[in-house]
Amino acid sequence: MTYRPTIAITMGDPSGIGPEVVVKALSDAQLRHRAKFVIYGMNELLTYAADTAEFDVFWWRAPAGTRQPVFPHDVVLIDYDDYSILGTALREPSKIGGEASMRFCVDAIDAAIAGHVDAVVTAPIAKESWKLAGYKFPGHTELFQQRTHARHVAMMFAGGPIRCALATTHVPLLGVWNQLNIGAVFRPLEMLHHALVEWFDIASPRIAVCGLNPHAGENGQFGDEEERIIRPAIRMARDQGINATGPYPGDTIFLQIRDGLFDAAVAMYHDQGLIPVKLLGFDRSVNLTLGLPIIRTSPDHGTAFDIVGKNRARPDSMRAAISMAIDLAIRKHTKNAARPDSAVINPG
Amino acid sequence: MTYRPTIAITMGDPSGIGPEVVVKALSDAQLRHRAKFVIYGMNELLTYAADTAEFDVFWWRAPAGTRQPVFPHDVVLIDYDDYSILGTALREPSKIGGEASMRFCVDAIDAAIAGHVDAVVTAPIAKESWKLAGYKFPGHTELFQQRTHARHVAMMFAGGPIRCALATTHVPLLGVWNQLNIGAVFRPLEMLHHALVEWFDIASPRIAVCGLNPHAGENGQFGDEEERIIRPAIRMARDQGINATGPYPGDTIFLQIRDGLFDAAVAMYHDQGLIPVKLLGFDRSVNLTLGLPIIRTSPDHGTAFDIVGKNRARPDSMRAAISMAIDLAIRKHTKNAARPDSAVINPG
Repeated sequence: MTYRPTIAITMGDPSGIGPEVVVKALSDAQLRHRAKFVIYGMNELLTYAADTAEFDVFWWRAPAGTRQPVFPHDVVLIDYDDYSILGTALREPSKIGGEASMRFCVDAIDAAIAGHVDAVVTAPIAKESWKLAGYKFPGHTELFQQRTHARHVAMMFAGGPIRCALATTHVPLLGVWNQLNIGAVFRPLEMLHHALVEWFDIASPRIAVCGLNPHAGENGQFGDEEERIIRPAIRMARDQGINATGPYPGDTIFLQIRDGLFDAAVAMYHDQGLIPVKLLGFDRSVNLTLGLPIIRTSPDHGTAFDIVGKNRARPDSMRAAISMAIDLAIRKHTKNAARPDSAVINPG
Repeated sequence: MTYRPTIAITMGDPSGIGPEVVVKALSDAQLRHRAKFVIYGMNELLTYAADTAEFDVFWWRAPAGTRQPVFPHDVVLIDYDDYSILGTALREPSKIGGEASMRFCVDAIDAAIAGHVDAVVTAPIAKESWKLAGYKFPGHTELFQQRTHARHVAMMFAGGPIRCALATTHVPLLGVWNQLNIGAVFRPLEMLHHALVEWFDIASPRIAVCGLNPHAGENGQFGDEEERIIRPAIRMARDQGINATGPYPGDTIFLQIRDGLFDAAVAMYHDQGLIPVKLLGFDRSVNLTLGLPIIRTSPDHGTAFDIVGKNRARPDSMRAAISMAIDLAIRKHTKNAARPDSAVINPG
């Protein structure tokens, strides 16, 4: 019988579309059949979202602070009702929203580290809210990295036709010069390789590495980062037996990935990777964090304050993120069961 | 009766796929029905391409230097047989290839300025060949600009689902900081507006302007170019009645353009525009030069030295470039006919 994992879901910023997409995604009977869920969120907003979307409430409430939710309940809500925002901060960043959404994440991460849940799926937070609450993380990824003591992490996108990891993420485009070095290209390349082998079951993944400049510099005519940084990183990876090639021109390589000539890409900067990922896979693509000791996925959209409360948010990407978390959790459990010594690290 | 324009076609670098795509594209009976053609190229390579593709030769030869090709011949080749490269520089850049491909362009531009042809379509040149021949132009666009004394030009792509003009083109990505200023965003925006009105018959085109940074800077959190440069350029355009909005995040705006919410985009740098253009419109998208007094289009691919002589080059993009040149030439002729005073400038 297939393992039925327990998935933690953080509700994200209370003023964003998080509550709505969580409720809509979990209303899917097939997802609920495949896993149990612990939502870290607020009952007042989730019931409001359920009412608006005309669903019956399908979760069992447990008070905030519950460390190991009592099952057989299939969906448990850890209810942080201290953070009530009703009538205060709808549709915009707020201090209380930052405090609440941080608490959901921290408690979910700790539950994953303790092995009470098999994976964490995060609904979108608002960086502005975190800032108002005094937290300086630029996003989930960095929070997860710090709290799990992961040395290096990378953002990866999968679920649509383009799988892609990023060498640099949320920095000004022209600040890329300050961040792009051989390690910044090599590490996501290496992590992507291992993720494709371990998580996606591809024995020898073919990874295309993008250039930074137009036409990948066209033999040094437009910039030298390809020679100074990207080629050496590719060589390092190949020396380790990783089937990485490039650098390829950004404007044509994604056609070849779409056509199946490669299994994944490493993009040099945010839009280079996210334009093709979203253009071909919107509503299907999922953000994975590589390099963590726990499984973490998220949808590829933000808080979308402009459509909050209008019952217009589409849960497709959240559903895809949950589904991928379930897949990865089952795969990890199966592998751990086959290797009893490593099962101690994460009993699943 | 619809006007039947005369289209100049330059063969591009003799060692590239130019001869092959020109012959294949012009073998299309429908294109030949709609226009007359003057090819600036070399008979030895075009006949070789025709033999390989198993077409009969369909052009009439005239010697290099012929200023106003004698019609009623529907396809005339101005044959630059002085530049024979047979047995010398196949599949790589060369000095003679640079000299030949420059000469094709210069003579075609002059023919267009003189009004002997209605438009110029350029097959790909190799910048390296031009360099070997002592020419420093980074590409066709700059050569056309200089020879026609155009003050400002911009690259635009059309033909597929995404129409897009570029604020910066063939510069190192991190060199964009040196080129991106209010004028660099405003001018292509203005030229794009006029092209959409004049050439694409859109009365009040909706133009989306991309941000430079991830999430268009997310309110200044990742870079300030959106506030310092892009917003002021959009304001200038709006003050002139241009329906421009933005800056929008690069990774989501092209979905909205694809879905018809905008008529075109201005991208801040090469890959930001070319990734979506090629991903959704490969083999259909055409490069137009905005700001010239003459019509110039080209396919969106390069010399592709790796597949030369193998009969594997696809003529789709060249055919699309020729077809668009015909469309634009007919439109210009019709407009000029309706405004007899301006007909003097370009008798078509």
